[in-house]
Amino acid sequence: MLRFLARWLFFGCVALPLRAQPLDSAAIVGTYRLIAERIIQEATRDSFAYRRLAELCDRFGPRFSGTENLERAIDWILEQMRADGLENVRGEPVSVPRWVRGRESIEMLEPRYRQLPMLGLGGSIGTPPEGITAEVLVVGSFEELRRRASEAQGKIVLFNVPFTTYGETVRYRTQGAIEAARFGAVASLIRSVTPFSMQTPHTGSMSYDPGVPRIPHAAITVEDAELIARLQARGERVRLRLRMEARTLPDTLSRNVIAELVGREKPDEVVVLGGHIDSWDVGQGAMDDAGGCVAAWEAVRLLKNLGLRPRRTIRVVLWTNEENGLRGATAYAARHNPDQHVLAIESDAGVFRPLGFGFSGSEEAYKLVRAIGTLLDPIGAGRITRGGGGADIGPLMRRGVPGMGLVVDGTRYFWYHHTEADTVDKLDPGELNLCVAAMAVMAYVVADLPEPLPR
Amino acid sequence: MLRFLARWLFFGCVALPLRAQPLDSAAIVGTYRLIAERIIQEATRDSFAYRRLAELCDRFGPRFSGTENLERAIDWILEQMRADGLENVRGEPVSVPRWVRGRESIEMLEPRYRQLPMLGLGGSIGTPPEGITAEVLVVGSFEELRRRASEAQGKIVLFNVPFTTYGETVRYRTQGAIEAARFGAVASLIRSVTPFSMQTPHTGSMSYDPGVPRIPHAAITVEDAELIARLQARGERVRLRLRMEARTLPDTLSRNVIAELVGREKPDEVVVLGGHIDSWDVGQGAMDDAGGCVAAWEAVRLLKNLGLRPRRTIRVVLWTNEENGLRGATAYAARHNPDQHVLAIESDAGVFRPLGFGFSGSEEAYKLVRAIGTLLDPIGAGRITRGGGGADIGPLMRRGVPGMGLVVDGTRYFWYHHTEADTVDKLDPGELNLCVAAMAVMAYVVADLPEPLPR
Repeated sequence: MLRFLARWLFFGCVALPLRAQPLDSAAIVGTYRLIAERIIQEATRDSFAYRRLAELCDRFGPRFSGTENLERAIDWILEQMRADGLENVRGEPVSVPRWVRGRESIEMLEPRYRQLPMLGLGGSIGTPPEGITAEVLVVGSFEELRRRASEAQGKIVLFNVPFTTYGETVRYRTQGAIEAARFGAVASLIRSVTPFSMQTPHTGSMSYDPGVPRIPHAAITVEDAELIARLQARGERVRLRLRMEARTLPDTLSRNVIAELVGREKPDEVVVLGGHIDSWDVGQGAMDDAGGCVAAWEAVRLLKNLGLRPRRTIRVVLWTNEENGLRGATAYAARHNPDQHVLAIESDAGVFRPLGFGFSGSEEAYKLVRAIGTLLDPIGAGRITRGGGGADIGPLMRRGVPGMGLVVDGTRYFWYHHTEADTVDKLDPGELNLCVAAMAVMAYVVADLPEPLPR
Repeated sequence: MLRFLARWLFFGCVALPLRAQPLDSAAIVGTYRLIAERIIQEATRDSFAYRRLAELCDRFGPRFSGTENLERAIDWILEQMRADGLENVRGEPVSVPRWVRGRESIEMLEPRYRQLPMLGLGGSIGTPPEGITAEVLVVGSFEELRRRASEAQGKIVLFNVPFTTYGETVRYRTQGAIEAARFGAVASLIRSVTPFSMQTPHTGSMSYDPGVPRIPHAAITVEDAELIARLQARGERVRLRLRMEARTLPDTLSRNVIAELVGREKPDEVVVLGGHIDSWDVGQGAMDDAGGCVAAWEAVRLLKNLGLRPRRTIRVVLWTNEENGLRGATAYAARHNPDQHVLAIESDAGVFRPLGFGFSGSEEAYKLVRAIGTLLDPIGAGRITRGGGGADIGPLMRRGVPGMGLVVDGTRYFWYHHTEADTVDKLDPGELNLCVAAMAVMAYVVADLPEPLPR
């Protein structure tokens, strides 16, 4: 009780001057500096956030759309959120696709036998039970494939494309099966989309084109892509047998997880923050994106524990099915009026050391969030750059909601992305705490400003 | 012919003053500077060494003792060495152990199902066909195991020991099965001996003690060792099923590979340099130790191509069975008189950027090799430190032969060590060339000194 009183006195004094006067950048800093310091202090006090993240990762394993793992994880989170005392805790039903990997293998039959580590790509069709056995054609780009189109017929095309940026290189994962099939390939393979490999295959989503035959599409490791390329360069004929049981079953139900800290003055105006609770079917989906989910969730728990209730509602949303459908994001934007959203914040780049946020919105709003950013300079997370958001808040952003993505030290993110190695041990309790602090300060101040963030 | 004449004139002039006068450090530098520069220039001229290394790795795959892969690789090397024009090219028969991994798996049955990436340790016995199913006891050290001895009975003991140095941490791999069995464990597991993991198990050799029951011994990944430790810390009971078909078959024949550049004055005095041609049964054994083999082999080919024939014989030896028996090293030292060896040089730490050599020998000899080291300063490989050698030259060193190990930038060596990820793509053509240059300069100058290296 004494502790509660002390809190009330402390924050009451700070909050009192804020009643409904628009604030300029300087005033924002002056008004919220002490609160930001208190939030940062509280966020970095212990390793509770990390232990919660580890438990989420360890208890359920990967949380792929359509699996019991995912739904059990969601049940557990809802239970914990209620125990935390968050408000309006609920799961909102979302119909999600259900792709099942099944057993899969790639064997090199010539010039020598070798079993290749591999992962089929999400949404791919399978092979016949006896597999597809064919010679490989290695190409380094779509351009090279077109130049060598006459050689692709009846072959397994391997796109051996080194990682430059994710955006550039991922095209071979999303479009590879279409382009290879266009020239008569019987299956297509990619070099995993990563700058570093320890014989580590990376899965991810892929597309078909209604006008082009569907062929199986899978990822092999950087090491094996380079091996096959070297063999081909030496004039060796490389033959592979690809077997995949992959298939798509009827849609099934999942849920977006929602919890709130209801606003004290304008409960219908909402700052959304979150990540996606689904993952691929490998590893623990620790950085993609359990960490983002826990950072957002902990940010709101922490505000609640500090007795900080902003003018507007802060809503944590843990979207489902980001990885292979984005159905959670679509359903959320359809169900909740974008006009009531002041800002949407996503963390989906791993909860490594936070550097700031990327912001998409008006110039006027940018000035204000840069001022809020200065409150995070003491922890090195104050850099607000232009552009940014996240896949799950994309549908909101396309309907005018300002969007923001947590920016972190991404040095190793793509080493682990969509692999068995995306596990909680790669993350650091102290860095996660800083992500929590950054999310909490940004969400609180935007939700508490006298006027909504200008569009 | 003109090229030959030019060479003769160039090196003839340099070599002439060297007839049988002992050289001090300053004289060594003066006498061999031009030759060293020429060797370095030649070694760094193209990527032939790397292409040879890649072909060796790609054609045969891992080269484990007792396998056809290893013997086929040796046949190929002997053929290439003869084509290179090296002298006295031969394979010397060595009886080697034959451990066969067979199929193997570890499944976590409680608290949730998971298949754990694993590698049985070399020399381990197998399990019964139905496997060994038991609860796990996680310990962080031998000391903790002794404290908790009463809990080990009937369990699978997991040594979850973080990597400090290889020497310290590898004790759990070599001794773990003995210590665990001493307290009644039914099997033992280690956290792979590595500072970094992408769900990567590391194999390696292990021991039994005649006075202690033999139990199966295997490595799991850092990620899973930490997972199981976290589960146990939360009070969860973890049950595993371990299946291993591992068994030891009768010894079989392999060969040490030998090739020479016969000395022009004292052909019976020998500078040996080499690496080990066998590897574990995973990956390509590219840095452990095909790279070391190719560096030594290329060093001698390069000297031959430059027309550099030193006073003493330079002998490349690619020892067999370093990994799980050291039979090649033992057989070599038994067959060849150590007293005729002036120096033994090994490269077995990966052919990354060379920094210098570690040297074990007399103080007088150390002064001379430090002087030779200065000839490698232009490529940053001139640092000669005290202590060093290699497993394969150990038997020679124990009989008085000065020993030397190539020292390289070892930042990532143990990331890949004994894993599927020890592949040629991790190595760099330019760095390999510098290793060739360092080995060639050191071997040539020591072999050419007017007096043998003092013992």
